Amino acid sequence: MSNTHGRVVVDVEQADDIALLADFAALSAIGATPAGGVERQAATPEDGQTRAWLQAWLAGRGFTVAQDRVGNLFGLLELVPGAPYVLAGSHLDSQPRGGRFDGAYGVLAAAHAAERLRRHYAAVHDRPRYNIAVVDWFNEEGSRFKPSMMGSGVFTGALPLEQALATTDVGGVTVGEALDAMGARGEADVFGENARRAVAAYAEIHIEQGRELEKAGIGIGLVDSTWAANKYELSVLGSQAHTGATAMADRRDALYGAALVVVAVRELADRFGLDLHTSCGQLTVYPNSPVVVAREVHMHLDLRSPSDELLAEADELLRVRLAEIEVQADVTINRTYAHTWRGQVYQPEGVELARSVATDLGLASVEVRTRAGHDSTNMKDRVPTVMLFVPSVDGISHAESEFTHDEDLCRGTQVLTETLARILQGAFD
Amino acid sequence: MSNTHGRVVVDVEQADDIALLADFAALSAIGATPAGGVERQAATPEDGQTRAWLQAWLAGRGFTVAQDRVGNLFGLLELVPGAPYVLAGSHLDSQPRGGRFDGAYGVLAAAHAAERLRRHYAAVHDRPRYNIAVVDWFNEEGSRFKPSMMGSGVFTGALPLEQALATTDVGGVTVGEALDAMGARGEADVFGENARRAVAAYAEIHIEQGRELEKAGIGIGLVDSTWAANKYELSVLGSQAHTGATAMADRRDALYGAALVVVAVRELADRFGLDLHTSCGQLTVYPNSPVVVAREVHMHLDLRSPSDELLAEADELLRVRLAEIEVQADVTINRTYAHTWRGQVYQPEGVELARSVATDLGLASVEVRTRAGHDSTNMKDRVPTVMLFVPSVDGISHAESEFTHDEDLCRGTQVLTETLARILQGAFD
Repeated sequence: MSNTHGRVVVDVEQADDIALLADFAALSAIGATPAGGVERQAATPEDGQTRAWLQAWLAGRGFTVAQDRVGNLFGLLELVPGAPYVLAGSHLDSQPRGGRFDGAYGVLAAAHAAERLRRHYAAVHDRPRYNIAVVDWFNEEGSRFKPSMMGSGVFTGALPLEQALATTDVGGVTVGEALDAMGARGEADVFGENARRAVAAYAEIHIEQGRELEKAGIGIGLVDSTWAANKYELSVLGSQAHTGATAMADRRDALYGAALVVVAVRELADRFGLDLHTSCGQLTVYPNSPVVVAREVHMHLDLRSPSDELLAEADELLRVRLAEIEVQADVTINRTYAHTWRGQVYQPEGVELARSVATDLGLASVEVRTRAGHDSTNMKDRVPTVMLFVPSVDGISHAESEFTHDEDLCRGTQVLTETLARILQGAFD
Repeated sequence: MSNTHGRVVVDVEQADDIALLADFAALSAIGATPAGGVERQAATPEDGQTRAWLQAWLAGRGFTVAQDRVGNLFGLLELVPGAPYVLAGSHLDSQPRGGRFDGAYGVLAAAHAAERLRRHYAAVHDRPRYNIAVVDWFNEEGSRFKPSMMGSGVFTGALPLEQALATTDVGGVTVGEALDAMGARGEADVFGENARRAVAAYAEIHIEQGRELEKAGIGIGLVDSTWAANKYELSVLGSQAHTGATAMADRRDALYGAALVVVAVRELADRFGLDLHTSCGQLTVYPNSPVVVAREVHMHLDLRSPSDELLAEADELLRVRLAEIEVQADVTINRTYAHTWRGQVYQPEGVELARSVATDLGLASVEVRTRAGHDSTNMKDRVPTVMLFVPSVDGISHAESEFTHDEDLCRGTQVLTETLARILQGAFD
């Protein structure tokens, strides 16, 4: 896949693609599930094994491995002593029974891109303006410990470190304890305002988690903006009772109330059409016995839209509907947590840089909007950021059947490599 | 509370009531929850402690303690060598965060009644026609191991022993293993067709788990029939996906399907009014992550009615509605288990015996129908059975706030004692 365009900094050989795919197969074997996915929730033993694999990979190629206080894992390569770093990566943690591409592909692509740049600068008599570092952000998925994008949130200052470390999973284990258990809690920041090292830019590549690229038949997505999102945790409070004996009129059934909420949230999406995505993915019943009317249900709602205004309108309609449900089911509904972000744009210069790279490599590209949050959603608020997508078959994600073709993985890594090369040479200066 | 009616066999002294209430307080301390309930699910350490307390109580008063192969616990008192036994009891296991009266009161009332009869026959120069035994039926609640009424089901032949022993809890522990762990699995039947001992009759007292007695201001309920019940386990199968990124039209959301089922089941009850009770008490979501569309939901439905015909009609309406929901939510719904029983009557001679006892004691009584299943529901299919209720404040049950007044506990035990005395003297012969 060597390229003949004159402006391309780093040529990619077939051997590079083969190495990438071989490493991706090795990585995908860790925490593998029978149906082709992986189960590597944050700070589980499988997450630890994946991190250890990456550390060995990086250390073996001359990268300096470091972990910060929230478990973000870095591989640093100093090409220009004292210069700021360009950071590239994604996350190695997965959803329960998640796909093997979500996050892990982005970390591996960044590692291979950095390694290609290391070899390039070792071979040519030329020095870049920046150093390069690979990152595995801790707990992007947020399934075991909420919120999602935790590591990049702490790194960018969006989430206080102490709050993140004190967060517990359903078993009462804190993030701090879980990080200590896998030896992943560093003693200091690796980068930071008062540290010797600074970060100048960020790049990330990810599978699309949607069908736009596949439908358009285009291999490279240039992420130009994010959907806005409202995430809520609700407690529905009823009264525990006997399912058979208690008269219907006397029931305060928390699960009936919660079911009405699930249906109402779906009806919101039906009302707004393509511009609103809604769901309830987590719902836990107490005491959850076949013959006991539930006293409490704890649930998570997720509303997303490209439009801040539409999302605000949906939020208000939901508020009204929840009040009606409280009457209908004779329950109390408390909102116990909310995590929201507005629709935001990525820096246009990042989009333009990636577009020119794709064009120079002879690859088709198109702007896409991301409905999901990514670590780059946090990073773009701090430094110039490039976010790239590669196609995902049928748009499947957060599922074992998630799949991206080899050639898309290879093409995406080539675009990421060249994008990083140009940033290292001052494309954002 | 000594009674002056000439026909009463066993007088009850104030000291007997005090002893009953003191023992009930001691029993209620085992597995006690902060809000006044108990947590003693079948074959948990707390169930084991409660059983040990009862064994010590019985052994200390000269009862022979024995356990059968499914963990039913008996205290036998041989008054007439070789004669059949009259059995009385209920269950010591509870729902998760259950009430302290449900089941435990019936076991303790039976133990005190038997002890009063022991003292009575030790004092008078008279011999009854039957022996007496107290029973704690294993796993009446069915919350940890399904089905409910397991111990009495095996005892009466309604449930095969091997099937019961092989049943697993959510952690994969079998009933057999759990019984062994608390030393509760006996090596042989204690009663049985080919055994030396036979059972001639059964009596049980329980809190009402409804409001009929309280509303009528009557202290003794004479259970004359049971509601019919249909219990189902359903699996709702969808497809795991990303809550934010996946287009609504592409979702096969198992939790949305399950929520529609919960609402549909409630609407069935609304349609049939007072003659149908419906609920979903247990619902478990997989993988249950905030940002993952559920691939599967496992749920338990519970439909009960005084009318077999109405229940059959509701069952058919539900079948039709489930098929509609499969289309609406693009999910598959499988029925994986069903446990049904038809509405049944208790022997009229049992109701008449208990009515005459109450009358002779100067107590008001009224026929009531039980909506819940009880161990007596199984026993009445085998031997003449008396089932008594005492009032429960606000009809609350399967909840920590379940409550019955002391005087109702004492009156009920007096009626049970006298009923057993008359059965021992041949009332059913």
